[in-house]
Amino acid sequence: MNTITSLHNPLIRDMKALNQRKGRLEQGRFLVEGEKMIREALSCGLVIRDALALEEHAYFAERLKARAFIVPEGVLQAVCDTRSPQGICASFDLPVPTPLSAAPDRIVALDGVQDPGNLGTIWRTADAAGFGAILLGGGCADPLSPKVQRAAMGSGFRVPFMIEDDLPDALLRMKAGGWTVMASDLHGMDFYCRPNPGNRYVLVIGNEARGISQSTRLVADMLLKLPMRGGAESLNAAVAAGIMMYGLTKEH
Amino acid sequence: MNTITSLHNPLIRDMKALNQRKGRLEQGRFLVEGEKMIREALSCGLVIRDALALEEHAYFAERLKARAFIVPEGVLQAVCDTRSPQGICASFDLPVPTPLSAAPDRIVALDGVQDPGNLGTIWRTADAAGFGAILLGGGCADPLSPKVQRAAMGSGFRVPFMIEDDLPDALLRMKAGGWTVMASDLHGMDFYCRPNPGNRYVLVIGNEARGISQSTRLVADMLLKLPMRGGAESLNAAVAAGIMMYGLTKEH
Repeated sequence: MNTITSLHNPLIRDMKALNQRKGRLEQGRFLVEGEKMIREALSCGLVIRDALALEEHAYFAERLKARAFIVPEGVLQAVCDTRSPQGICASFDLPVPTPLSAAPDRIVALDGVQDPGNLGTIWRTADAAGFGAILLGGGCADPLSPKVQRAAMGSGFRVPFMIEDDLPDALLRMKAGGWTVMASDLHGMDFYCRPNPGNRYVLVIGNEARGISQSTRLVADMLLKLPMRGGAESLNAAVAAGIMMYGLTKEH
Repeated sequence: MNTITSLHNPLIRDMKALNQRKGRLEQGRFLVEGEKMIREALSCGLVIRDALALEEHAYFAERLKARAFIVPEGVLQAVCDTRSPQGICASFDLPVPTPLSAAPDRIVALDGVQDPGNLGTIWRTADAAGFGAILLGGGCADPLSPKVQRAAMGSGFRVPFMIEDDLPDALLRMKAGGWTVMASDLHGMDFYCRPNPGNRYVLVIGNEARGISQSTRLVADMLLKLPMRGGAESLNAAVAAGIMMYGLTKEH
């Protein structure tokens, strides 16, 4: 395996650019960090391209079907956007979003969830709760950013994602296809008194500060609110999503 | 109101030091940022000392029973540990932790939860779910750090905290006092098949990577695990805590 030591090397510059949405779209690739996540991505059928590893991770990099190089710690830190990268990173072809026409029965939809940590955490929870896909409306964080994938802990490769910039329109089409649309909303009814949504549904989680949009509110079959017993006015978006997802699926 | 423009001013240096645990303990004070949080802290009976405000927030600072100064944006940024501080910050006397002898019926205990965001988010959720206190064992993030309080969104002033460095010992004493001790553990029984814990209980949440300690495991009356349906191995600590807290209190 060859070694790259210069930050000006074209491959290093290309891989560093994958931290930005622009770079990912231009190159059609995204960055995966750490042995565990790379293994997850491969086992989910994603196509690996280039890998950069510290000397200690060369044994792992060597066995990958990738163009692999040894790099010093400073170069790896510059490529990954973490202070303590996990010894190896690799570029993969961007996965293709699932079309709405192939939507599974249980979906969590995000209406402008901007925080990458929240988006990734909701993805991870959707996997654990048995949801079949996440649907990203306009204004969400980029699902293929390293921060999102780090918080998703591998669930970002396992649980398919759909992208529909006009979320209310997508929800309308889903309603016509038989999905019940529920949305988390601070003016909604008590989550624990909700009518039965059936087995085919979408749960919509809104923006961290503003909640769901007015158009989503109009499209939803039901607006649901978790009871607030103490002085707190609201919950963190990822926590509210988790409580509702598990509340909905626990009887399945 | 007077103006302070120098970063070398002793008050500025003192207030900046409140971002560190050492500074908080030495001065017996902690930092609260933003008008909303300052209002919350005052309404919870905390004692305010000094306030630093941008010109636009002078009207608010003036009415506080504090030594208040106008500062330029650079000084406020240096004092607060955020890139975009909320226009005003104030120091308050450190609140006194609640003794274990005054523990309420429903408690969430943290066994080495290190991430300030997770700790603050769990605090906020405990408030919303109607838990009476949080109990911090050894190895947790400092509850009075600005990061924790920011994530707690005011719940850090409303929900009392208890500190017991020897958490297993504290849990033993609570068991003797009639509390049922439940702990989240990946080797536990299905959370949704748990026996009834009664109305007096502690829910223990473990460290983000290692989970609960072996001693806590031995002390717990029951170990509980949320079902993992997809490929995810675990949940984010704050999400798991939220699902369990709401699962436990929804029937109260």
